Amino acid sequence: MNRNIEIISSLKGFQNYCRSNRLARKTIGLVPTMGFLHEGHLSLMRQSRADNDISVISIFVNPTQFGPAEDYDAYPRDLDRDSRMASEAGVDVIFAPSARDMYPEGYATYVNIERITEKMCGTSRPGHFRGVTTVVSKLFNLAQPHRAYFGQKDAQQAIVIKQMARDLNFDIEIIVMPIIREEDGLAMSSRNKYLSPEERKAALVLRKSLLMAEGLFKSGVTEAAIIYNRIKDMIDFEPLAKIDYISIVDADTLDDVGKLRQNTLIALAVFIGKTRLIDNIILT
Amino acid sequence: MNRNIEIISSLKGFQNYCRSNRLARKTIGLVPTMGFLHEGHLSLMRQSRADNDISVISIFVNPTQFGPAEDYDAYPRDLDRDSRMASEAGVDVIFAPSARDMYPEGYATYVNIERITEKMCGTSRPGHFRGVTTVVSKLFNLAQPHRAYFGQKDAQQAIVIKQMARDLNFDIEIIVMPIIREEDGLAMSSRNKYLSPEERKAALVLRKSLLMAEGLFKSGVTEAAIIYNRIKDMIDFEPLAKIDYISIVDADTLDDVGKLRQNTLIALAVFIGKTRLIDNIILT
Repeated sequence: MNRNIEIISSLKGFQNYCRSNRLARKTIGLVPTMGFLHEGHLSLMRQSRADNDISVISIFVNPTQFGPAEDYDAYPRDLDRDSRMASEAGVDVIFAPSARDMYPEGYATYVNIERITEKMCGTSRPGHFRGVTTVVSKLFNLAQPHRAYFGQKDAQQAIVIKQMARDLNFDIEIIVMPIIREEDGLAMSSRNKYLSPEERKAALVLRKSLLMAEGLFKSGVTEAAIIYNRIKDMIDFEPLAKIDYISIVDADTLDDVGKLRQNTLIALAVFIGKTRLIDNIILT
Repeated sequence: MNRNIEIISSLKGFQNYCRSNRLARKTIGLVPTMGFLHEGHLSLMRQSRADNDISVISIFVNPTQFGPAEDYDAYPRDLDRDSRMASEAGVDVIFAPSARDMYPEGYATYVNIERITEKMCGTSRPGHFRGVTTVVSKLFNLAQPHRAYFGQKDAQQAIVIKQMARDLNFDIEIIVMPIIREEDGLAMSSRNKYLSPEERKAALVLRKSLLMAEGLFKSGVTEAAIIYNRIKDMIDFEPLAKIDYISIVDADTLDDVGKLRQNTLIALAVFIGKTRLIDNIILT
């Protein structure tokens, strides 16, 4: 189903496109991405295609969500490949603005969520979520979509976006889609590209430790401290892995839980070599 | 032109009302207020009525823009009187939400503008502009108006709102209307109600000192330091007045200017007794 896909770089052009569709009473689905698309993104696009009359995505490597020592410059980019993939996933328009247009000289406005952004990825990436909520606010105002799609792989981000949409009264339904994995279980991520063959193998420890934890929970182990230590031991045993955090929290509030239960989120961030990977599981 | 005015307190109800009008291709004008309406507000409403198919106002004394030692509880409220006045100014709907609905338990999201909020009123009222930009973001998302109206009396607020709308890509035209004054020159303000008869007289020193400064400029005095001292001397001479700030800045950027010129903003905040009043003039 290769369609005629349009790439819009102008903010006004994108805003006008979305406004005229909205006034024509078409529903609009938005998938915000940083590009270098993979099956995870495509699953969001296919859902957006199924749910809405118009399916738009943004491709924008957002500088404000990267720390000074992070991989903004190195982050992989391939708009040609992305547009072929998006086209096949039924996307009507790719919005691909420049950083200069998104953050012109004198730019000074930031959207910040307190508390839930201060733990987990917020601890190791200060300012990251402020950059995410700021750019997503801008994209929401430009597209004014009926629905916006995010991946469960970024579990904390999904909760942060939901809170922002609720608090700021965005008239947008936030839809969170399941993690998509490689055949061997590694969660899909544009950053997997950074991994050497040995690192690629070592990276499986994230998923393996989560499955081990789920197995312990199903067999009746509910002490968070015990589960934490078992995960830590398994990851520490992998020489190429270095733990950033292991969090065992309520999946809605991100509050720490002492006992595992339904709707507990176990979330990991682990450096494999220099590449920081995240993965998570929600217990059911 | 007394019209049938509707008061909506539910956020969803207001959002639905505005959405259905927008989809019917009616233009919507929004005047955000804290109520206790005066001729200043009415001038915004009349302009909104003239410019748009639908004219809505919000009446909400916004707790997040008051400091802990400020007059949130004492701020005057009179919804009956306000609705009569708004009705006569051709308003279709008053949105009057509760603080609990606007900031429910667990609320955590704030919109912040850097730099231009850190001087003038931002110095003496820390957190004030963060409260203003947050509530205006919420009102913008609820109403999604075509135009929103603000008064030049709050000169810094008008610039902050314009910057926010530009930075966050709100699809809304921000319109700033001139200061409306009492016959003797006092800028209209809901807080004028706090003034005793003697204070009411003393309060004229704000306007008088601005007119004096304008006169000096027209006669060729352009040194900001000289103008500053002449304003300071005049206000200091009034026993009931205590200067909060005198700012001589560019009217668009709020950068200090050393020499007065076209488009210089002279802005004052002065305590008259316990009441903090503001006023300003733009040189032409």
